[in-house]
Amino acid sequence: MADVIQRLSNYFLRTLRDNPADAEVASHRLLVRAGYIRRQAPGIFAWLPIGLRVRRRVEAIIREELAAAGAQEMLFPALLPQEFYEATGRVDDYGDGMFHLSDRKDAEMVLAPTHEEAFTLAVKDLFSSYKDLPITIYQIQDKYRDEARPRAGILRGREFTMKDAYSFDWNDEGLDASYQAQRDAYERIFRRLGLDYVIVAADSGAMGGSKSEEFLHPTEIGEDTFVRTADGSYAANVEAYTATPAEPRDASSDPAVEVFDTPNAGTITAICELENITGDATLKNLVVALTDHEGKRELAIVGLQGDRAVDMKRLEIAFAPREVEAATEDDLKAHPELVRGYIGPWKDGEQFLGEGSTTGIPYFLDTRIGDGSTWVTGANTNEKHVRHLVYGRDFVADGRVEAAEVRDGDPAPGGLGPITAERGTEIGHVFQLGRKYAEALGAKVLDPNGKQVVVTMGSYGIGVTRNLALVAEQNHDERGLIWPEELAPFDVHVIATGKGEVPLQVATQLAEGAEAAGLEVLFDDRPKESPGVKFGDAELIGIPWILIAGKTAADGIVELWNRRSNERTQVSIDEAIPALLAARAVR
Amino acid sequence: MADVIQRLSNYFLRTLRDNPADAEVASHRLLVRAGYIRRQAPGIFAWLPIGLRVRRRVEAIIREELAAAGAQEMLFPALLPQEFYEATGRVDDYGDGMFHLSDRKDAEMVLAPTHEEAFTLAVKDLFSSYKDLPITIYQIQDKYRDEARPRAGILRGREFTMKDAYSFDWNDEGLDASYQAQRDAYERIFRRLGLDYVIVAADSGAMGGSKSEEFLHPTEIGEDTFVRTADGSYAANVEAYTATPAEPRDASSDPAVEVFDTPNAGTITAICELENITGDATLKNLVVALTDHEGKRELAIVGLQGDRAVDMKRLEIAFAPREVEAATEDDLKAHPELVRGYIGPWKDGEQFLGEGSTTGIPYFLDTRIGDGSTWVTGANTNEKHVRHLVYGRDFVADGRVEAAEVRDGDPAPGGLGPITAERGTEIGHVFQLGRKYAEALGAKVLDPNGKQVVVTMGSYGIGVTRNLALVAEQNHDERGLIWPEELAPFDVHVIATGKGEVPLQVATQLAEGAEAAGLEVLFDDRPKESPGVKFGDAELIGIPWILIAGKTAADGIVELWNRRSNERTQVSIDEAIPALLAARAVR
Repeated sequence: MADVIQRLSNYFLRTLRDNPADAEVASHRLLVRAGYIRRQAPGIFAWLPIGLRVRRRVEAIIREELAAAGAQEMLFPALLPQEFYEATGRVDDYGDGMFHLSDRKDAEMVLAPTHEEAFTLAVKDLFSSYKDLPITIYQIQDKYRDEARPRAGILRGREFTMKDAYSFDWNDEGLDASYQAQRDAYERIFRRLGLDYVIVAADSGAMGGSKSEEFLHPTEIGEDTFVRTADGSYAANVEAYTATPAEPRDASSDPAVEVFDTPNAGTITAICELENITGDATLKNLVVALTDHEGKRELAIVGLQGDRAVDMKRLEIAFAPREVEAATEDDLKAHPELVRGYIGPWKDGEQFLGEGSTTGIPYFLDTRIGDGSTWVTGANTNEKHVRHLVYGRDFVADGRVEAAEVRDGDPAPGGLGPITAERGTEIGHVFQLGRKYAEALGAKVLDPNGKQVVVTMGSYGIGVTRNLALVAEQNHDERGLIWPEELAPFDVHVIATGKGEVPLQVATQLAEGAEAAGLEVLFDDRPKESPGVKFGDAELIGIPWILIAGKTAADGIVELWNRRSNERTQVSIDEAIPALLAARAVR
Repeated sequence: MADVIQRLSNYFLRTLRDNPADAEVASHRLLVRAGYIRRQAPGIFAWLPIGLRVRRRVEAIIREELAAAGAQEMLFPALLPQEFYEATGRVDDYGDGMFHLSDRKDAEMVLAPTHEEAFTLAVKDLFSSYKDLPITIYQIQDKYRDEARPRAGILRGREFTMKDAYSFDWNDEGLDASYQAQRDAYERIFRRLGLDYVIVAADSGAMGGSKSEEFLHPTEIGEDTFVRTADGSYAANVEAYTATPAEPRDASSDPAVEVFDTPNAGTITAICELENITGDATLKNLVVALTDHEGKRELAIVGLQGDRAVDMKRLEIAFAPREVEAATEDDLKAHPELVRGYIGPWKDGEQFLGEGSTTGIPYFLDTRIGDGSTWVTGANTNEKHVRHLVYGRDFVADGRVEAAEVRDGDPAPGGLGPITAERGTEIGHVFQLGRKYAEALGAKVLDPNGKQVVVTMGSYGIGVTRNLALVAEQNHDERGLIWPEELAPFDVHVIATGKGEVPLQVATQLAEGAEAAGLEVLFDDRPKESPGVKFGDAELIGIPWILIAGKTAADGIVELWNRRSNERTQVSIDEAIPALLAARAVR
């Protein structure tokens, strides 16, 4: 390479004193201030030369590990016909999140948010037999999503670089193997990036498919919540966590349902006070409106333990593909039989909500509710409640849904102990898509018996630029960035400082020596900057090793500075490069 | 690298027997049939794994040569705010050629056709002093242009990859030096790509700026025409060619103007027949309509030698930024003084067209018309012409324009001899933009006297994917592609063919031997394909060296096949890799 010594006097890099006004997180602040990225529009950034170098190193790690896993790189355009996404229903799924445009012939195009369709069509196009499979193909490509609230710099942008891989198999065993190979590669990649990660079960959601796991990087600035047991035997995105029903209870000797007056007690708090009970003894009933794809809207009631808040995100997943929202005033007006504050599944000795009930309004119960559990809840009459209402004896449900918020201490599925919740950011996602896309797009091959079978797919994503930002989040201090050696834009930052010719001569000698040793060198040769400015810039930029030729250079002594430990060691000029090479972890 | 042996049995590559229906040129046909690219939409292609490998090699050459020229790589997004382009007027300049879209907040965005504005704003943003300059920064990035007629595969697509570089200087000498450095780098790049090129003077056109040269690759499928002298002393894009005025002629003894009857002679052909003269003795007068940015439309007349066709493209350049078109019926109706077929600059003893004339309609003359030249032309009266009409004596012009078509044999400017015209395709463009963009965007620095000066820019482009296509155009035969060694997707193509275990074992040994020697290997290990299919695929794919382990492998003999010369040499198994290494031009 011709560019292994980059002189700072002639580099398109300017460190900035002030934080960007909108920067909420350290990576955003530091990557902008240290001259790595520059904002162009909300959620859209340019990569300055030093930033691009780090990107390339992140990409190189991903490429190496995917090649080792047998995946083949190719490249699709960002601009695609909208019809690709119509075939799979994803135009609707993405909604406003997808950038749309028309060309001069009014053909509808999109900027691709991901490329499942294009990859599937390519395989359909070129392959025809089970003998062609398995194959895993991927790209590292710029993606576009019209995020409502782009934020946190490159952590959640509208343009971002992603590695998206897709596996194709003709049977389920093949998919399992392809999936495992990618999952293993992801573990190697994140270890090399030095990013902590937790692999959590994820919701398959609107993408369809069977198995889905996210690699979450635990961080307080994360947008995701995940839960896990202390021993690590269970971990899941909170959206994929499934609550465990309470142990069945023998209610055979329970008293009969009893209606009682509860004046002014239309809230859980009020009824608890009035009856001197705790919220977990009450059943809270929420009226929601469900809307299907054709716009058909109907009400449903969701019952859950009174001391738990409703988690609308979990409800959305439970009712997908129908959309769910809290019922409006108009919804309630259309159903005068629902008495606000006093709703319950039972009235006057019979099932009041649910299929075959008086009202016909469907009734769903939170997963946690156990057989034989007994409740205080509304009597569907103003200012009246019931007690001793037993689930299974007095009322049933049309179905179970994950309705309630998850709390620390809730049990993991399968008796794996109590969970705690943490924040994290998705750094990778592996997903057994199954046959949904291939079916929609007609991607079939002949199986060994000569029969046409729909191929089964996996999809595997890593946010390249997001991962880079998270490396910055995890590797910085109050003075600036501290890159891990494998990701640093340069291997060593050589500084000439102090008066006279000697420091510059010695620094030049050090830079050339480092280059000769195969290192990539950033050389601060600026003639007019003070030592303070140069050291401050070096700390902000964050190259892990810094060599300083300063005042003592005339005596043959230079300093090797470890950016991370902040340790400075005096070495003779001749020993400087050998000492640097010995100190580096990457050989 | 973990992927240096790629087995064809497991590669996302399928050669196709049939040419794409719309493929007009060899590169389109062969890159599709050999599995390098695949169409996604008109003018939009995906790069299959083997195609991406060639792209990377082209990009590597460009990166190396630009780094050697001191340019720094960065990366801008494709999606940019439209306002960037409004400031410089380029939204209008590009018109329908630019892809526009709105985001969810109705902000107007574009897909960048080139990035002059973004680079200029970045320099304005970070730099403030002449000491920061010069700098040349570039990117290799996917560009979008909504071409009216995308064609010829990746030669003229709507999405394409471009290397675009921009230089910034604070004075003209600096710009000259930056320009020269890029121009030199371009020569090195095209030499390494093995692409013939001619550097031609180009029209600066709507981009503004002073000096502009194109690197044209001479090819019959080119969209550009360029002219040059046999000795190479002059070369220009035909649009930038300037005609030479005819030598002045002494008209002092010419007869006076004479009007004569010319019934039914409203065309050049008719008047030539009637008068028994040749077209070069006649002056043809074309009525055009000029429209400025505000939509103001006015007529003008262009006079040129009767035997020359008008070149509207040259006229467009001559009248830019006003748009020019042939006058319509309505235009002519509005000017009854213009008698169709009998228009001329003179009537009744005085100037009829041009400033200060009877009509006030501006009159422009083709550059070729010499002082004192004498003409037969229209008399502005039905069925009447004039003869002995002398330019300079009887009429003058408001200005000179390049109006007439260029012909083989026309003189080069400066007396450099006759030119001939050839077809070519632009493979690179170097351009002294000057201060137009910096002025519009306010990019200034302090000069050595502490005075704010507008920076001066150069812009330098190479179409990465187009160049790749042209390499394919220049390196193929009727059987397929023939890559130059430095650009080949793999260094060697190893083929196992023939019955029994031995050929596959020997081929595996050869593939591993080549890998151990540092070569990238494509290994045709397909068990069921015939020798004919394997050889045909090898010829189509076009890796320059092919090693065949076939029938004679059992006797210790394999074949080394030179794809370009078609020479096949028998070598012993042990000598195969040394023979290959010795035969390669790239070491």
